[in-house]
Amino acid sequence: MSLLEALNWRYAVKKMNGQPVEQEKVDKIIAAAHLAPTSSGLQPFKVIVVTNQELKEKIAPIAFNQSQIIDSSHLLIFAAFEDYTEEDIDGFFSYMNAERGLPDSVTDAYKAQLKGMILGRPAQENFNHAARQAYIGFGMALAEAALLKVDATPMEGFNAQALDELLGLDKHGVKSVTLLPLGYRDEANDWLVNLKKVRRPLNEFLIEYK
Amino acid sequence: MSLLEALNWRYAVKKMNGQPVEQEKVDKIIAAAHLAPTSSGLQPFKVIVVTNQELKEKIAPIAFNQSQIIDSSHLLIFAAFEDYTEEDIDGFFSYMNAERGLPDSVTDAYKAQLKGMILGRPAQENFNHAARQAYIGFGMALAEAALLKVDATPMEGFNAQALDELLGLDKHGVKSVTLLPLGYRDEANDWLVNLKKVRRPLNEFLIEYK
Repeated sequence: MSLLEALNWRYAVKKMNGQPVEQEKVDKIIAAAHLAPTSSGLQPFKVIVVTNQELKEKIAPIAFNQSQIIDSSHLLIFAAFEDYTEEDIDGFFSYMNAERGLPDSVTDAYKAQLKGMILGRPAQENFNHAARQAYIGFGMALAEAALLKVDATPMEGFNAQALDELLGLDKHGVKSVTLLPLGYRDEANDWLVNLKKVRRPLNEFLIEYK
Repeated sequence: MSLLEALNWRYAVKKMNGQPVEQEKVDKIIAAAHLAPTSSGLQPFKVIVVTNQELKEKIAPIAFNQSQIIDSSHLLIFAAFEDYTEEDIDGFFSYMNAERGLPDSVTDAYKAQLKGMILGRPAQENFNHAARQAYIGFGMALAEAALLKVDATPMEGFNAQALDELLGLDKHGVKSVTLLPLGYRDEANDWLVNLKKVRRPLNEFLIEYK
């Protein structure tokens, strides 16, 4: 199946049937998010995987009791860095250079320029920047799920602050931005399954300079 | 090629060889962005495609003269809505309902709730929200390009305000957020092509609640 076929197949499943997603597929969906490109390669987000049913039941009311939280087998939470830190930037570049067999000094000039740009910005601006990177990974996870015929419902409808407090995400230096429950559609009980997928007309979406 | 193979194949190409990307492939890359899921389906972004060489030459200095701007055959610009408007929300839902053969009233309650949430927020907050949606589409375009073995270099390093002014994007109600030049790698002259792709260790990226 091509990606375009997969994107046409997928939709924001409203009712899942409780069938668990195979771990091998979940691993691939996470791998896609992990391989996503990000600004300067910094990967300023984490993916949290919740399979614990009791915890999902605590999360449900934080997300307007949307049933997919409970009925999914794996609830992914995308959480972006609340800020960039000098220690993290240094640590990441040292790791990258070591992995590439290069001296750490090779990125000194680039790193200095990057720090000059990033570290002077307000934390909120850096969080917004990090959140955008998280959404690239989120897109990759959605794409891989669809290609594997795993249903995944993108969700922004939840109280991020309450979720962060429940999970203690501040100790990881991240704040939640999106949810992605994984499971399989319950076709008989999903009001959305048979409705046409609608996108804006292409001529309203696209602007060309030839 | 699987998506994971494609994501391992791709990298942020620093030097393109000038070979044009086939229009059929460009169309598929745009289609992937167009099919991307977005919050409430609103698709609050546009994709601008620049093939005009003179215009690319004007854009280059706005993007630190990165050579891919000139050497790509198609420069994609992802631009997010500067704000949400009531007219746009009404128009989108009317279009969607008509496409689905449903009376326009079917989404009245949902639309009222959505407007209550969105229209009271500052424009900057709505732009940040729209930008995140644009990044999902950006991820999908990157994924499709890689699957088609088309090189695509994600770029945030440009003066968005200057680009918006050059293109007069305010008349479309959008602001640029990322660039994505499409082309083919010049392996002999790209310093990055042979360096190992590095991602943070998975155990630092992933948090599990079992």
